[in-house]
Amino acid sequence: MFRNFKRFLIGKPLKTLDEGGQSLSKTKALALLSSDALSSVAYGTESITMALLAAGAVALWLQIPIALLVLVLLGAIVLSYRQIIHAYPSGGGAYAVASENWGPKAGLIAGGSLLVDYMLTVAVSASAAADAIIAAVPALLPFTVALSILIVVVLTGMNLRGLRESANFLMFPVYFFVVVLTAMIVYGIFQAITGQIPYHAVAKVGTSFSGLSLILFMRAFSSGSSSLTGVEAISNAVPNFKVPKERHAASTLAMMAFILAIFFAGITFLSYWYGIVPNKQSTVLSQIAAMTFHGYNIGFYVIQMATALILAVAANTGFSAFPMLALNLAKDKYMPHLYMDRGDRLGYSNGIVSLALGAVVLLVIFHGSTDALIPLYAVGVFVPFTLSQSGMIVHWYRTKPKNWIFKAIINFVGAAISAVLVITMFSLRLNHVWPYLIIMPLLLGMLLKIKGHYTSIARQLRIQYINSDKAVRHHYDGATVIVLVSNITKVTTGAIDYAQSIGDYVVAMHVSFDVNPKKEIKTATQFKQDFPEVRFIDIHSSYRSIIKPSMGFVDAIVKQANKRNHSVTVLVPQFVPKKPWQNILHNQNSLRLRAAFAAREDISVATYYYHLTE
Amino acid sequence: MFRNFKRFLIGKPLKTLDEGGQSLSKTKALALLSSDALSSVAYGTESITMALLAAGAVALWLQIPIALLVLVLLGAIVLSYRQIIHAYPSGGGAYAVASENWGPKAGLIAGGSLLVDYMLTVAVSASAAADAIIAAVPALLPFTVALSILIVVVLTGMNLRGLRESANFLMFPVYFFVVVLTAMIVYGIFQAITGQIPYHAVAKVGTSFSGLSLILFMRAFSSGSSSLTGVEAISNAVPNFKVPKERHAASTLAMMAFILAIFFAGITFLSYWYGIVPNKQSTVLSQIAAMTFHGYNIGFYVIQMATALILAVAANTGFSAFPMLALNLAKDKYMPHLYMDRGDRLGYSNGIVSLALGAVVLLVIFHGSTDALIPLYAVGVFVPFTLSQSGMIVHWYRTKPKNWIFKAIINFVGAAISAVLVITMFSLRLNHVWPYLIIMPLLLGMLLKIKGHYTSIARQLRIQYINSDKAVRHHYDGATVIVLVSNITKVTTGAIDYAQSIGDYVVAMHVSFDVNPKKEIKTATQFKQDFPEVRFIDIHSSYRSIIKPSMGFVDAIVKQANKRNHSVTVLVPQFVPKKPWQNILHNQNSLRLRAAFAAREDISVATYYYHLTE
Repeated sequence: MFRNFKRFLIGKPLKTLDEGGQSLSKTKALALLSSDALSSVAYGTESITMALLAAGAVALWLQIPIALLVLVLLGAIVLSYRQIIHAYPSGGGAYAVASENWGPKAGLIAGGSLLVDYMLTVAVSASAAADAIIAAVPALLPFTVALSILIVVVLTGMNLRGLRESANFLMFPVYFFVVVLTAMIVYGIFQAITGQIPYHAVAKVGTSFSGLSLILFMRAFSSGSSSLTGVEAISNAVPNFKVPKERHAASTLAMMAFILAIFFAGITFLSYWYGIVPNKQSTVLSQIAAMTFHGYNIGFYVIQMATALILAVAANTGFSAFPMLALNLAKDKYMPHLYMDRGDRLGYSNGIVSLALGAVVLLVIFHGSTDALIPLYAVGVFVPFTLSQSGMIVHWYRTKPKNWIFKAIINFVGAAISAVLVITMFSLRLNHVWPYLIIMPLLLGMLLKIKGHYTSIARQLRIQYINSDKAVRHHYDGATVIVLVSNITKVTTGAIDYAQSIGDYVVAMHVSFDVNPKKEIKTATQFKQDFPEVRFIDIHSSYRSIIKPSMGFVDAIVKQANKRNHSVTVLVPQFVPKKPWQNILHNQNSLRLRAAFAAREDISVATYYYHLTE
Repeated sequence: MFRNFKRFLIGKPLKTLDEGGQSLSKTKALALLSSDALSSVAYGTESITMALLAAGAVALWLQIPIALLVLVLLGAIVLSYRQIIHAYPSGGGAYAVASENWGPKAGLIAGGSLLVDYMLTVAVSASAAADAIIAAVPALLPFTVALSILIVVVLTGMNLRGLRESANFLMFPVYFFVVVLTAMIVYGIFQAITGQIPYHAVAKVGTSFSGLSLILFMRAFSSGSSSLTGVEAISNAVPNFKVPKERHAASTLAMMAFILAIFFAGITFLSYWYGIVPNKQSTVLSQIAAMTFHGYNIGFYVIQMATALILAVAANTGFSAFPMLALNLAKDKYMPHLYMDRGDRLGYSNGIVSLALGAVVLLVIFHGSTDALIPLYAVGVFVPFTLSQSGMIVHWYRTKPKNWIFKAIINFVGAAISAVLVITMFSLRLNHVWPYLIIMPLLLGMLLKIKGHYTSIARQLRIQYINSDKAVRHHYDGATVIVLVSNITKVTTGAIDYAQSIGDYVVAMHVSFDVNPKKEIKTATQFKQDFPEVRFIDIHSSYRSIIKPSMGFVDAIVKQANKRNHSVTVLVPQFVPKKPWQNILHNQNSLRLRAAFAAREDISVATYYYHLTE
């Protein structure tokens, strides 16, 4: 039943060798990995404008120089990540680069930041998409959080079905957004140039005003940089590309950066030209759409719909990137091995499910408030950016390829701008980013603890050798088997027969609590008659637990067995009903006993299963 | 951690022999078992009055003859149950009596009705208590259902701590209610006789009116009979009494009936004398209190508080009766054995928890609406009343003791009135009692299915004998052991050593899925070097499941073993981390494999535990 249901939801299992077929072409990869970055233009220009408004509408002309600086940062980051893709084709992005060049601790900071960040990506994008849907269908307003969670659940399902199918499904919204946004920007600029929409800027570039300061500028710049979140997704997912993986990944990244730059520049220009001031009712993007298409007509609604769709898809970026990062951390033993297990459809199911749970928790805690999450999200991105790009400088210095100084300068520019952004965030927006300072130490502590555990286990389990080639072994002279007996049935017969096949000394143990001893005497008599060759021990318990008294007896037997150099097995006879629901009709004692004996040294626990046929 | 928390909530475990100390004295039993019956006077007279009001205020004088008839019914039921207590001292009440005299099916109908009824008792009383608390503190109104559930949870906790402690705790509210209600009735009647409160009856006894009909009379009578729910609790709980159990139980029942009769008669008389007409804002009981104490003063509030308290305690009756009934049904194999397991504090924990869950579900479904539940509740009580009292007639006819005809007549009166009530309910109030006709067949079907399962299991497990004294056995010539191997570590060494101690033929099985075969070759080489005497089989799986390919191989080994007359054991090596949380860091493959092999015949599954020390 459960299996069929799972098959219906997830699809048939795939063979491991089918994996090649799951690899991504450039067109699919662009859809799957760029939606996060591209969709951020929906709020990038707006965040700059909002930050500048603090100094009055006269400051709005600053959006032009800030946008140019963001584009420089984008250029530096993209060039830097192209270099990373070629230098580290096995994926891992900031985590791999920082680990190798700055050491494991720095790598962990980068990796840990990104783990949390991918959850934020999913939460922020899903809630923004829900907001966009609600803007179109206001009746859904009371269900904001529920709608966000529904988007996360649907994406989880699609990702459990496998990467390629998700990509097919997601290609449409991304390319639809690219097409309609391009159309809007081109049509808007055409109308601006031909004078059909006259120049309306609130303040001309260069107008001086009283509140102009470095703090204002940096606040606005740090807000605008939120458009650059998601750029690292491609470098993390290099192993998912078709061969030649690095070349395909690098050109996909270039393509994405090109589109992002045009969108960001175009929207900022139109916002400046139209003199748009954001308000609570409508976003900058929706105002631009209304101006460009001259009203709330079909053009306006198409833009709104495309925005909503790509935001939903953007949430998917986390689903591609998180499991890969978790896999890399698990390979390095910083995360549980279970993040290395693939599901039936070759996706890393545990990573997908963990991410979804994290995102849902964030949505519930923050009630889907995008504003509160974005600064945290930006810090989580720019800390790893700084670490990986500065790490690349170390990389070039160590390997010294042709033109290494030029390459190092590119990375230096990226690292410097990223570092300045991080410092700006912590000094100017501490009221939003303080949770980072609490979450990160906890997360790093956990990752290090897991690593320590795995290392300690590996050391403890290493085989010892005599003369460096003969493993230390122990030869037993026999086996003692303790059979647990409750009532005397066919299960008992089968268990005793089996025990005699594996054991040299077999003893039966019976635990009783009835105050009335008649039943016990009857059981003992019947046992002795049916199994005259087996020693029968009746243990009386004054409590209703069978575990404590059993343990005491087993201890005595273990001592005896050690003297004889016997191994000790506790055999639990158990019958298996025909239908699983029938299990609740029977005492769960054997389960409890197995758990108790697992905690004891020197004892192996065996189960004799008697299968009922009716 | 969990154990300490449980100990804090529930208390230290008690020895089975401590059970005697948990027995009830008459004073405690009255508190523990009578609150349901006594508290029903809070709504008994009111239900009669409400039903009569349908024919206008002039019909209200009928409450006097109806109350007299209810008292006759009470007398008949109590006399009948006293006879039952002496005839069936092991408890079980209606279930035991109906089973023995009418056969198991009738017993099941009685038992099944009562199972559901106890859940209704808890739900109805808890919600009525919540209503009473809210009447005093109107600010709690939005939390009606939550408050009812809280009462159920608190009672559950107290019952898990053990019967005696609950009784100590519950004695105060019951005796408090008895004292203040007696005081109110005496003071009210004194004022009526002395003329301090003049005769105000709406209509004199005997006034004729147009709407007078049998239907009206029967509706009002069936409503009034809801005061009699809870009377059977004492006869079900006979084994909980101090010895001599029957005598103590019978006199407790008589005491309870005496108090109930006085309360019911007194309240109905005062209601008639004062000419009280119930309305939505105040209950009949609260109006009587206000009249008797001349206003909303301390006397009024004490009565209200006492009512609220005893209703909360009344919910506890179900907690005493349900687990005992479930125990009796489980002994007869109609319910799962787990209802026979006692908790640490000697209460039947599973029964207590099941009852609480059922009551909470009812509270949530019916939003704590007492009105909707009471008719259902009454049917659930009077069906078993009818069955047990008519059963007693059969009992007297069979055993023919002294005065048996007189005894049979007492039971006949009770049975007849109960049967008329059941018929009235189904014919006049089907709109309220229809769920009974759906729930009962489902419940009976379930109970019979469970019985069938246990009977079938017992038959299948019965040992077969040759010549009626020698059990059929099977002698194996040896044991084949299959050891599952993943990486080669100390766990492998220990497992192979152990396997050789129990097996005559040991084979190692390794499952690989890596596309890259290098790792497999390395594992195979190391194994062959360390364990040259053991056959090593590498199974390659193209899926990521290790279960399917393992099964195929194990099938082949089983076939071979059958030829050699060997038993087959699959040995799963597993290491046990020092701290339980560390288990999530390791593959859960061994758990999955154990479950898969449990489904196979001819295979026993053993686990070799390697205990980590760090």
